[in-house]
Amino acid sequence: MKIGILTIGNELMNGRIADTNSSFIAREMNLQGWQVETMMSVGDDFETIKTRLHYLLTFTDAVICTGGLGPTADDITTAAVAKAFDLPLYTDEKVLACLKELFIRFNLRWTDNNAKQAVFPQGAEVIPNPVGTAAGFVLPVQEKLVFVIPGVPSETYRMLPEGVIPVLRRYFPQPVRHSIKQTIKSFGLGEGTVDQRLADVNFDALGVSVGFYPVFPENHLVLIARSDSLEQAEKNMQKAVDEVTARLSDSIFGYSEKTLEEIIAEALTEKRLTIAVAESCTGGLIANRLTDVPGSSVYFERGLVTYSNEAKIQLLGVPPEIIKQHGAVSEETARLMAEGVRRIAKTALGLSSTGIAGPTGGSKEKPVGTVYVALTDGAQTICRHYAYRWDRKRNKLVSSEAALFLLKNYLQGKV
Amino acid sequence: MKIGILTIGNELMNGRIADTNSSFIAREMNLQGWQVETMMSVGDDFETIKTRLHYLLTFTDAVICTGGLGPTADDITTAAVAKAFDLPLYTDEKVLACLKELFIRFNLRWTDNNAKQAVFPQGAEVIPNPVGTAAGFVLPVQEKLVFVIPGVPSETYRMLPEGVIPVLRRYFPQPVRHSIKQTIKSFGLGEGTVDQRLADVNFDALGVSVGFYPVFPENHLVLIARSDSLEQAEKNMQKAVDEVTARLSDSIFGYSEKTLEEIIAEALTEKRLTIAVAESCTGGLIANRLTDVPGSSVYFERGLVTYSNEAKIQLLGVPPEIIKQHGAVSEETARLMAEGVRRIAKTALGLSSTGIAGPTGGSKEKPVGTVYVALTDGAQTICRHYAYRWDRKRNKLVSSEAALFLLKNYLQGKV
Repeated sequence: MKIGILTIGNELMNGRIADTNSSFIAREMNLQGWQVETMMSVGDDFETIKTRLHYLLTFTDAVICTGGLGPTADDITTAAVAKAFDLPLYTDEKVLACLKELFIRFNLRWTDNNAKQAVFPQGAEVIPNPVGTAAGFVLPVQEKLVFVIPGVPSETYRMLPEGVIPVLRRYFPQPVRHSIKQTIKSFGLGEGTVDQRLADVNFDALGVSVGFYPVFPENHLVLIARSDSLEQAEKNMQKAVDEVTARLSDSIFGYSEKTLEEIIAEALTEKRLTIAVAESCTGGLIANRLTDVPGSSVYFERGLVTYSNEAKIQLLGVPPEIIKQHGAVSEETARLMAEGVRRIAKTALGLSSTGIAGPTGGSKEKPVGTVYVALTDGAQTICRHYAYRWDRKRNKLVSSEAALFLLKNYLQGKV
Repeated sequence: MKIGILTIGNELMNGRIADTNSSFIAREMNLQGWQVETMMSVGDDFETIKTRLHYLLTFTDAVICTGGLGPTADDITTAAVAKAFDLPLYTDEKVLACLKELFIRFNLRWTDNNAKQAVFPQGAEVIPNPVGTAAGFVLPVQEKLVFVIPGVPSETYRMLPEGVIPVLRRYFPQPVRHSIKQTIKSFGLGEGTVDQRLADVNFDALGVSVGFYPVFPENHLVLIARSDSLEQAEKNMQKAVDEVTARLSDSIFGYSEKTLEEIIAEALTEKRLTIAVAESCTGGLIANRLTDVPGSSVYFERGLVTYSNEAKIQLLGVPPEIIKQHGAVSEETARLMAEGVRRIAKTALGLSSTGIAGPTGGSKEKPVGTVYVALTDGAQTICRHYAYRWDRKRNKLVSSEAALFLLKNYLQGKV
């Protein structure tokens, strides 16, 4: 099956926003074994949307459109698609009722232009939006399918697998094939290294397709095994997973969609352990990530962002002479920060970070990107040293990841 | 002048690489006052490249192609473009000599397939590559222009301004038009409300185009004024900005690309004020945002993520009876948290958040999304109450925004 992609929005055409949806859709289609033939992007222009859509349909079986479904006047995708096939528009009363309910629930003021998001071309099947106000739709035309979903990436990322792919499977049934999906998440190896280590694995021979998703600072692999029998698909997947595991070994932290902080949350909850965090260079990011998980108040007791030396001394009991002798960015300080926050918060574990996020503050001995993370359980304190070379925000992110990765390994008895 | 973009490469079609060239080219064209009409991406397929290129030329004056200029067999862009116009290929001896010289200089081994990079369609004008081996070219056909440059972003980024734009200016001389860009950022009004408030402004009559960019929880507007005279463009822009300011008034927090935290950083630095933060429901996100700005150690003294009641009592001196009487999520607690962290950190300002991020923990009186943020300077403490209704992560984000927005208003003397 051949797929076309049409991303719509003036923000794409003036270059303000780079189109990441097309690449995401292409990866997902590729994993399903479908071929993306052409991707196109156009502005919010009635005639252009119509014409380009017709053109894409001349050589594809389905076109997936994203963008232009907002309540504002410049968003015209639905109307343009309806016009392209001379279809009248109708208001879906069920969608309208849901929309109004959503506004009440979110405490937003209803304005009449929002009713636009309940309007669809006649003959369309609504594709619900689990994370936003703009529902999508699929329109069967000329034995082909036109999908329209929102352009907000977080909504596209949900609605493509949950709404679009099932409809594609229904309209274009394939010989009964079983497919299994398996995500493998890793941290600590560069994108190129992961690529190189896996270069000799013959995934094709195993009937497994591989998608590669670098999500800084993690690398995610998505494997899909397809076979006529479920048993064979499972066998093939197991072989492929074993090959990947043998090559990426300790850098792998998960075999599911769960985030690193979710994996940690489960382990902490299961082991009934509490934790307190003392951060310097990560500036609150470790605490923020740990508290992103619902129910984190069960294990997360407190987080201290001790940016100044005074805060490290006053709140964590780090002796001033240690900071003077070794510096605030040192293994000694990192260890004492973790031990101090654990002692004062009376938690099972203490986790810390100290480093130089940049762009300034580096020296020859301790350049920008120097980071120490430490973890203590009272009996032992483990400290790791890293030398990163990213920009400030990415140095913060990779440092928070290093701290959480250490914590995860500890919880899994790997350190 | 209308521009088409055609990015070429199998790595785009399977989603392994997201196309960033199109967005870069679009930005550059937009700044020149030229309109990108359609962007397209296709794989390294002879027929597809030919057909799509012809299609793009039916409604554009120039098409800029990137990708498929490598020495390997799968790169076929030059041959496909030549074939599209029935032109023979020739080897440019000067380019070939340069190429061989480059190989010697970089100590690379010459293999004959590299000679492919000196081959061009008859009638093409070579566009030199200052940073790589693949030269580009421009082919004038049917009073239109077809540009072909490499797809490696670092090469595209050099060859577009240095090679492509000068040729476009030569072939399509324009009346000198001036364009000015102005970003306006706001927080606190929904996307629909912003739209409605601006509905009666006739931007077209002012020669100003407007883009709406919701970046949760902010709304960004980008205005572009174009005129033959710079003075007129400036006048038009001022009028448009005044109209927007009159309608969005207090929700506007910035008139530039600067983030809210950058605006705050400048104000704190200028006024030589220090700040400490006590967070509950935002879980470290306020501290994380404040420390995203380089040099934040000058004003950011510490951040305390006091998730447990014990931490609020022990670290901030919030009296247990206040928490017992009013609850941890209350105006009283928020005020005492801000005052406590300021007192203990000895900073000029104290900022706090307390609320229920969800999905659990809500009650009838205090549902999920109930948030209090407070700011104190020692003389006065200001507290704001909000009722948000998003998911956990967005409740955290919008709460951190509300706290930072209050801080910004205080720093600008607006509270």
